[in-house]
Amino acid sequence: MKLIRFGEAGKEKPGIQDKDGKYLDCSTFGEDWNETFLGSDGLRRLEAWLDANQASLPEIPQDARIGSPIARPSKIICVGLNYRMHAAESGMAVPEVPIIFMKATSSLCGPFDPIYIPKNSAQTDWEVELAVVIGKRAKYVTKENALDYVAGYCLHNDVSERDFQLRHGGQWVKGKSADHFAPLGPFLATPDEISDPHKLRLWLKLNGKMLQDSNTSDLIFDIPTIIAHISQYMTLLPGDVISTGTPAGVGMGLKPEPTYLAPGDIVELGIDGLGVSRQVAMNDPEA
Amino acid sequence: MKLIRFGEAGKEKPGIQDKDGKYLDCSTFGEDWNETFLGSDGLRRLEAWLDANQASLPEIPQDARIGSPIARPSKIICVGLNYRMHAAESGMAVPEVPIIFMKATSSLCGPFDPIYIPKNSAQTDWEVELAVVIGKRAKYVTKENALDYVAGYCLHNDVSERDFQLRHGGQWVKGKSADHFAPLGPFLATPDEISDPHKLRLWLKLNGKMLQDSNTSDLIFDIPTIIAHISQYMTLLPGDVISTGTPAGVGMGLKPEPTYLAPGDIVELGIDGLGVSRQVAMNDPEA
Repeated sequence: MKLIRFGEAGKEKPGIQDKDGKYLDCSTFGEDWNETFLGSDGLRRLEAWLDANQASLPEIPQDARIGSPIARPSKIICVGLNYRMHAAESGMAVPEVPIIFMKATSSLCGPFDPIYIPKNSAQTDWEVELAVVIGKRAKYVTKENALDYVAGYCLHNDVSERDFQLRHGGQWVKGKSADHFAPLGPFLATPDEISDPHKLRLWLKLNGKMLQDSNTSDLIFDIPTIIAHISQYMTLLPGDVISTGTPAGVGMGLKPEPTYLAPGDIVELGIDGLGVSRQVAMNDPEA
Repeated sequence: MKLIRFGEAGKEKPGIQDKDGKYLDCSTFGEDWNETFLGSDGLRRLEAWLDANQASLPEIPQDARIGSPIARPSKIICVGLNYRMHAAESGMAVPEVPIIFMKATSSLCGPFDPIYIPKNSAQTDWEVELAVVIGKRAKYVTKENALDYVAGYCLHNDVSERDFQLRHGGQWVKGKSADHFAPLGPFLATPDEISDPHKLRLWLKLNGKMLQDSNTSDLIFDIPTIIAHISQYMTLLPGDVISTGTPAGVGMGLKPEPTYLAPGDIVELGIDGLGVSRQVAMNDPEA
């Protein structure tokens, strides 16, 4: 299944994308795609419900806004420096264990929403990433059974303000958490849709120019390792998002000099089997 | 007002502590103390409701478990190294701007719940802190009006695993986020209950011995500075918890050598006007 959410920000309704790419309204299922849904065997219940009801579901209006495919989770955890070439371009060592940091969940937005350049920002940057969504409570899990805890996969742009992240005192969370810094989607694909999450091309273009182009086969720490590792330190809840890291080609690493987002810049990104998203950069209207 | 929550973990009911220290059941108010409640002028509505109903509220059974005084928030943000002597005992420089990091919200628990020593932990440590609970959405706020965004104050033990925090790769979140690492409460005191949040003694005892004993007058960055600073980097939502940092006397800094929690250790802590909490350390039953 491919789960989507659509409608006004903060009031999204649940839907799916069918085999033909059509968006169907699942409001009558009566649940949002959130922690409660995933934590109560919702995917299996939804599948059974779709068997009986899919043919009669209304199509979503063409001009509907697409939101994040899952409702605000308890946490968004990101893995840092998880591709060798990106560690190199960042001037940092290849890590010996997964580096993790948090992104405020208030940064979540839809895949076609604008990227807001925050107040006082001069270094707003992009990061195409494969995001994993957790399907059930995970604590002290082993690598061997870690994939049992996955509800699905999404495309994620881990938008980052480099000056805030690296030079504003201490921890990275400062540069990762502004509003609209986490465009997620267009959809959540359940694991049956993705034959091998470690063989997916992922790419990102800025104003039509390909800047990131890699494959999840290059992940330093694979998905089972990441889930098992994080679950030693904190309990993962249904709906939690783990973003697995970005490959080389972010603005900070560009030669001859770094490039950052300016208002009007167009960012497009995609991952095999997980669709394409597109964001236009603009100054935060509240700044 | 002093807000409490009571009952089984994960199914807490709302209540208050009255002027005489009695705990009263506010279930009939029909709301939990959470983001929705605080974000819809809940404190003012509750006050009006109590004027009409307080006399008829049932007392809470003496043996009821006390939970976190607020439901799981969107984020718990902690300020690091915000007391000079603690920065010194940590071997770190006094910061020039607030250092912030996140704590997974899944770590939240009640003020008298056990502290769980996580699997593979040898350095579980304590940190008495003044926590600020946000009352309304705060973004790009100034120091001058930052206190308008405060719903109230709580006692918090920012339990920390030092090895996980400092030597397991990268960011501090790894050592801050285990289950039961955030005992909060016993109650949330609204600002009218606290004449000056920058003149509160805060203390912590381990097995009856006073180890932390300081005053919020020693904060390097005061509460308005912290709120304003964080709100430049991320949007604070109603219910969000900001823990303002711990004074000297944590286990990591003890002489002649560091001391960490072992099963059976008793931690008691308190802040003027914000009550006292008490946790017994035990090995995580899921480990």
